[in-house]
Amino acid sequence: MKFKLKGTITFSKDATDADADINHFIENANEEILLKGLGNSDESEGAKIVNWDLDEDTLHLTIVSGHKIRAHDGLLRLKNPLSQLLGKKYHLGVRKLHVDEYEVTIPVGENEYVFDLNLAEKFDQLEDISIKDNKVTFVIKDIDESRLRKQSINRIIKQVAKKDVVTDEDGEELDITYKLNSTPGEIIATSPEFETYFEGDMTQTALDLGWVKQFPGKGQWFYGPEITALERALEKIIVERVIEKIGFEECLFPKLIPIEVMEKMKYLEGLPEGMYYVSAPKRDPEIFTKFKNDLIVNKEVPIDLLKDGLKDPGYVNAAAQCEPFYQFFSHEVIDESEMPIKFYDKSGWTYRWEGGGSKGLDRVNEFQRIECVWMGNPEEVTEIRDATLNMSHELANELELEWYTEIGDDPFYLEGRKHDDRGIEFPDIPKYEMRLKVPGQEKGVAVVSANVHGTHFIEGFSIKEAHNHRIWTGCTGFGITRWLFGFLSQKGFDKENWPKLVKESLKEVKVPKILTWP
Amino acid sequence: MKFKLKGTITFSKDATDADADINHFIENANEEILLKGLGNSDESEGAKIVNWDLDEDTLHLTIVSGHKIRAHDGLLRLKNPLSQLLGKKYHLGVRKLHVDEYEVTIPVGENEYVFDLNLAEKFDQLEDISIKDNKVTFVIKDIDESRLRKQSINRIIKQVAKKDVVTDEDGEELDITYKLNSTPGEIIATSPEFETYFEGDMTQTALDLGWVKQFPGKGQWFYGPEITALERALEKIIVERVIEKIGFEECLFPKLIPIEVMEKMKYLEGLPEGMYYVSAPKRDPEIFTKFKNDLIVNKEVPIDLLKDGLKDPGYVNAAAQCEPFYQFFSHEVIDESEMPIKFYDKSGWTYRWEGGGSKGLDRVNEFQRIECVWMGNPEEVTEIRDATLNMSHELANELELEWYTEIGDDPFYLEGRKHDDRGIEFPDIPKYEMRLKVPGQEKGVAVVSANVHGTHFIEGFSIKEAHNHRIWTGCTGFGITRWLFGFLSQKGFDKENWPKLVKESLKEVKVPKILTWP
Repeated sequence: MKFKLKGTITFSKDATDADADINHFIENANEEILLKGLGNSDESEGAKIVNWDLDEDTLHLTIVSGHKIRAHDGLLRLKNPLSQLLGKKYHLGVRKLHVDEYEVTIPVGENEYVFDLNLAEKFDQLEDISIKDNKVTFVIKDIDESRLRKQSINRIIKQVAKKDVVTDEDGEELDITYKLNSTPGEIIATSPEFETYFEGDMTQTALDLGWVKQFPGKGQWFYGPEITALERALEKIIVERVIEKIGFEECLFPKLIPIEVMEKMKYLEGLPEGMYYVSAPKRDPEIFTKFKNDLIVNKEVPIDLLKDGLKDPGYVNAAAQCEPFYQFFSHEVIDESEMPIKFYDKSGWTYRWEGGGSKGLDRVNEFQRIECVWMGNPEEVTEIRDATLNMSHELANELELEWYTEIGDDPFYLEGRKHDDRGIEFPDIPKYEMRLKVPGQEKGVAVVSANVHGTHFIEGFSIKEAHNHRIWTGCTGFGITRWLFGFLSQKGFDKENWPKLVKESLKEVKVPKILTWP
Repeated sequence: MKFKLKGTITFSKDATDADADINHFIENANEEILLKGLGNSDESEGAKIVNWDLDEDTLHLTIVSGHKIRAHDGLLRLKNPLSQLLGKKYHLGVRKLHVDEYEVTIPVGENEYVFDLNLAEKFDQLEDISIKDNKVTFVIKDIDESRLRKQSINRIIKQVAKKDVVTDEDGEELDITYKLNSTPGEIIATSPEFETYFEGDMTQTALDLGWVKQFPGKGQWFYGPEITALERALEKIIVERVIEKIGFEECLFPKLIPIEVMEKMKYLEGLPEGMYYVSAPKRDPEIFTKFKNDLIVNKEVPIDLLKDGLKDPGYVNAAAQCEPFYQFFSHEVIDESEMPIKFYDKSGWTYRWEGGGSKGLDRVNEFQRIECVWMGNPEEVTEIRDATLNMSHELANELELEWYTEIGDDPFYLEGRKHDDRGIEFPDIPKYEMRLKVPGQEKGVAVVSANVHGTHFIEGFSIKEAHNHRIWTGCTGFGITRWLFGFLSQKGFDKENWPKLVKESLKEVKVPKILTWP
């Protein structure tokens, strides 16, 4: 890559007296500061001031560079030493840096970068994009010092120009740990065969029997007494036979998650279109009086008045369920002797916006899940993940359910992480998914998702071990409404066919008849 | 009240040929149609066409009236008989009605109406408001037929001009059932005295001990293992000793409530400023790609892009918790022999936006509640309400907790209902609140709220009994996080002092130490 920057350094007053010293400084900078850290790379990979001109309080500069020390980073490097030099001798300060025009040239084609032109056109900042002789050139104009320091230019470039090697912000090649050594979909364990008693469409049958009723919200269901009894039985069995056996302690995790917490999760970079967003009302009695009057008079919800009365979206309805765990430990220091720490939560619904994808009782927008989250050294964390998975396998066998476990697709947090390589440590296989088979359907329904996150959340939430030892986190979600689906799909709706373990845990229910339904 | 209306009736074509018949019709109308239903009231309380003039296809009218048959209702009464008359003889139809100007005069002062001038000024529809000789006059202009039929004028008037007597939309005096024969705050039962072991600030102590930690969202808390164990113990005790004993069946109620369901509850007219509003994402990959890129580059959530990507608010986070029960039975017919129907839900958090009012662990925005809802004839419904309350009293005595129960303030649904008197039937006392005493504090913390709604939800959700017999609904909420607060405020944090019943139900917990907290 090549960079050409035209910009200015503005001093606190006229610097004409310092002209000779500035000339000298620049000649030196071209030999030292602007080449520092190049290592064995060619000098052309560094930065060089090729033109300069002092006009009263403004120093106009043209800097060219290769990709190791980019021209704008070079400009940033000049500020402090120049301030020191001129401050002492001339009582001159450097007031600000500014880039007027920044031309970036990126080689494309074989063994070079892949340039995403579609994406680039979505960045308003990139102007005059042209392609010629296997090179893409564009210009970014008018960058102030704060944007320079935020490194937003490097991030834009990283977005639009990708290589198989990934470099960090200083251009160093990184060990790309997020390139997984595993194949999503690869099956690592399967159950013995068991008898199944049902072949139809589980959702349709549940509807026909009146066990569930569709709720007006998309992908939402009202679960009646019969199916709730089964849900509670499965929950109890999983808690007693897996979760408590591994020593998880129950907590109550909040389920309304501030957007800033979700951003620390990297969920907003990964799957922002997959969540429900929540706004609190403003403190504005005037608007709400108007809203009520309008509603009373016109019998229609005045949605624009409502929108006027709401703050910007400040929350999401919990999507991952484990968010509060990391938040709880955020900026805290824990001694490794207290680890592993193992908490679980089963205090309420979590949500995914499935768009047009919600269907039946298996792919829903609102679901019950028991979420286990833990923290410890990498070995412990991996062992606990394995325990949740292995004990789930055993439990499913006891319940005479057919299952298989596969390597999962990249989890959401890697999605966001791909653009943000801060040397975060990842396990080889971040996600396993255990699925209950669904007779007559190729793919089973995912009932257990077991994850190890490496240092992803430890870094994101600034959690510290007392001796600065490495700690990782993991989480395993038991989708209880998914277990319901898989269970009924295999065992059917006749309780006689259900395994003893479930029958024993099942409460008797009395269900009222409705004349007009189901 | 006096009304003077200037408006038009538009025919489907020139009606000049029918002039004589129209004149005759109007003279008759003034004797019959416009006085119908007056009963013993003076004729001046009816409507009268005092001026009319046919101009091709348009009949210009001036109608004056008292408040029993208001002029605009008079205009509506003319349409059908006039259509019939002219249709047969002249093949003329009445195409539309329109009010050009409607002058309303309202007597104010002693024994007359109370006029809310501030409110009136908020209705853009009311023009030229003037006050003279103990009379308020205003004009409403340009009302089309659909707004006439929606009765929005009567509703506006009812909003701004109130009397101690309430009239229905035909001006009939109503039995004002929402004026309760009870005094909110009146205490109807109290507990014996029991020993208390704590006097401090419960929230502060829970924080000092590390039992809870503040979550970044307003009025939200992370409940750690110790307090969660107590929460689960109390939940179990209440379910086993009250809820299941009365025969409630557990269901899983959705917790994301579509706005149209909330409107049927009359919650939006009652307390719209007390809820969280939820928006789903639009199906617009373009915007979300832009959102992600912007977030990755600038490291700040681009809130305007996010707002562009969201639909209008379509849901609220459940505030009442019982909403799905009425929705479940909406438009269904149930035989009374299947009643009473008793369901309960404990499947997750519910929410109130408390604005600046949230404080401590007692007044929170996010809370756990067990909600019981039932339906049956008025006697059954009242008996069940009483049972939930009486058994809660007994349970609290067993737990050695001090409590008192008082008549509650008007519940939210009466708030909305005050503007909408459709002859809904209400019980004398719609709400009881049981409170646990908080040592050192005058008011206890409300832990049980027991409500009977009369026909409010039955009407709102169109639920029918097979023989069209009267059915009512009721609901009782057990605020579990409130029980926690009251319990710890009386019994303190030393488990030795807790009653046997709680100790027996309590799970052992192991709590990790954090070096930097609490």
